[in-house]
Amino acid sequence: MAIWVRYRRDGADGFGVLDDDTIAAHTGDLFAEAAPTGEQVPLADVALLAPARPRRFVGLWNNFHEAAAKNGLATPAVPLWFLKNPGCVVGPEATIRPPASYAGRVVYEGELGVVIGARCAGVDEANAERAIFGYTCVNDVTALDLLTEDASFPQWARAKGCETFGPLGPGIATNLDWLTARVRVAINGRVRQDYPLADMIIRPARIIALISREMALEAGDVIACGTSLGAVSMKPGSVVEVSIDGIGTLRNRFEAAA
Amino acid sequence: MAIWVRYRRDGADGFGVLDDDTIAAHTGDLFAEAAPTGEQVPLADVALLAPARPRRFVGLWNNFHEAAAKNGLATPAVPLWFLKNPGCVVGPEATIRPPASYAGRVVYEGELGVVIGARCAGVDEANAERAIFGYTCVNDVTALDLLTEDASFPQWARAKGCETFGPLGPGIATNLDWLTARVRVAINGRVRQDYPLADMIIRPARIIALISREMALEAGDVIACGTSLGAVSMKPGSVVEVSIDGIGTLRNRFEAAA
Repeated sequence: MAIWVRYRRDGADGFGVLDDDTIAAHTGDLFAEAAPTGEQVPLADVALLAPARPRRFVGLWNNFHEAAAKNGLATPAVPLWFLKNPGCVVGPEATIRPPASYAGRVVYEGELGVVIGARCAGVDEANAERAIFGYTCVNDVTALDLLTEDASFPQWARAKGCETFGPLGPGIATNLDWLTARVRVAINGRVRQDYPLADMIIRPARIIALISREMALEAGDVIACGTSLGAVSMKPGSVVEVSIDGIGTLRNRFEAAA
Repeated sequence: MAIWVRYRRDGADGFGVLDDDTIAAHTGDLFAEAAPTGEQVPLADVALLAPARPRRFVGLWNNFHEAAAKNGLATPAVPLWFLKNPGCVVGPEATIRPPASYAGRVVYEGELGVVIGARCAGVDEANAERAIFGYTCVNDVTALDLLTEDASFPQWARAKGCETFGPLGPGIATNLDWLTARVRVAINGRVRQDYPLADMIIRPARIIALISREMALEAGDVIACGTSLGAVSMKPGSVVEVSIDGIGTLRNRFEAAA
C-alpha cells in the first residue's frame, strides 16, 4: 500500500508517495509511468492539492443499507448517479464557500472516493477491480435548498456542483482494504458520521462495471460511493474532517459566502 | 460572422474558418490566439470533428414556451440543468449507437448549443454575452427508458451521457443572430422538429449569468439550450439531421447497439 499525493511547493506542482512526514517525489504520469526522482520533500514544505483532477466526477445516491432503511428507500439494483462539476474539486485545507447568491443550507457528506487508473469501457467486475488506482476521501458538499428549489426538476448537478463543493484528499491509497474501513466525519472535532464501508449496497468494482457499460471511464476519474447517516448542514467557521482508515483525513473549513 | 470547424486530415487534427468548400487553416488556440497559416484546405479532404471539447457539457430541461405549455409545465424562473458526460461528444457523421446493454427507446433532441469563449464566474448578462464564442447545433440524445428506470431517482446524467450521445457541429458560428433562427430536425429527410429559437424561455446570456453565479464556465464549455416539440425516438438506420439557420446541418446516423 502507498499513499500518493499531489502538492505545490515554491509555486510548482509535483506528486509523489507520502511516507510519514516526507514525500518521495516522482516524475511522469501518476497513472502511467511514474518514476521516483530520488528527492525527498518534507511534507511541511508543501501545500497538498487534490490528488485527482477528474474529467468525470460521479456521485452516487442511496448506496448504504443503513441510510436506505432509515430513509425508507428501496435498495437500488443499479448505481443511481449524478455528475458533479469537475471544476468544483479542491484539495485539503481549501475553504468550502457557498455562492454569494445562496443563503440556504450547505451539507457535508463524507464518502469513499474511487480513483480510476485506466480506461474502462464495458468491463466486467474483475477488470473493473484491476482498473482501480486507489481510494481517497471525498466531501460531497451539497447546497440542499437548490436541490429542491424547483419541484418539477431535482437539480442534482447544480446543488452539488458549486465551486469548492468537491474536496478530495489528502492522498490516494492504493491496495486499500476498504471493506474493513470506516468513514468518519468530524465537525469541529465532534464525530457526526461514523459508518462502515462494508454496509455499501453496490460496491466499487460493480459500480464501475455497470457504469462502464454506458459511459467510459478514464484514468483520474473519481466515483464518490455515496454516504450514510449523519450528514447535516454546516455552520460558517466549521472545520469539517473526513477520515477513512488507511487513507487519512481530508480537512477543510466551511465559511460563509464572501 | 464566421464558421469555425475542427477537422482531421491525414491523421492530424486542425481547425480553421469554413468558407463554402474551403477551410482557412489556423494555428494556436481556437478561443485565444488563433492565427491563419495561409493554407486553404479543401473541405472534401477532411473529416469534420466536434468543434468543441467541453469540460462542462450543460443541458437544459423545459426551456421553450410551446413545449412547456403542451406538457403542462410551469415556466421556470432559473435554468433547470443537468451535466452530460463530456466524453459523449462526437462530431458530424459519427454514428450514434446505444449501449449493448440497452434495448429501450433512444430520442433525438435538436438544440442550440452555446460555446463559451472565456472564463465566466459571477458575470452579469452583458459580460456573459461577451463571453459567448459562438453557436453550434447539438443533438442531445437520450436513452429515455434509463431516465425513469428507477422511480426514486431520475437518472439524467446516465440517460443522457451514454457514449456517442452528444453530437456537436458542424461548426461554431460567431456573431449569429440566433433570435431569428429556427431549429429543424429531419429524420431520413422528413422534418420532425421545426421551432423558433425566439420561443426560448431563458436566453443564452441569462443562462450563463445565472449558472456562473454557482459554477464557473470556461472556454470550450457547451450549453445546450433545451428542445421544443417533436422529439421522438429513432429507428436503427435513421439519418438524423439537426439544422440551425446560419450554422448549418449536423448529420449523424443512428444504429442499433453493436
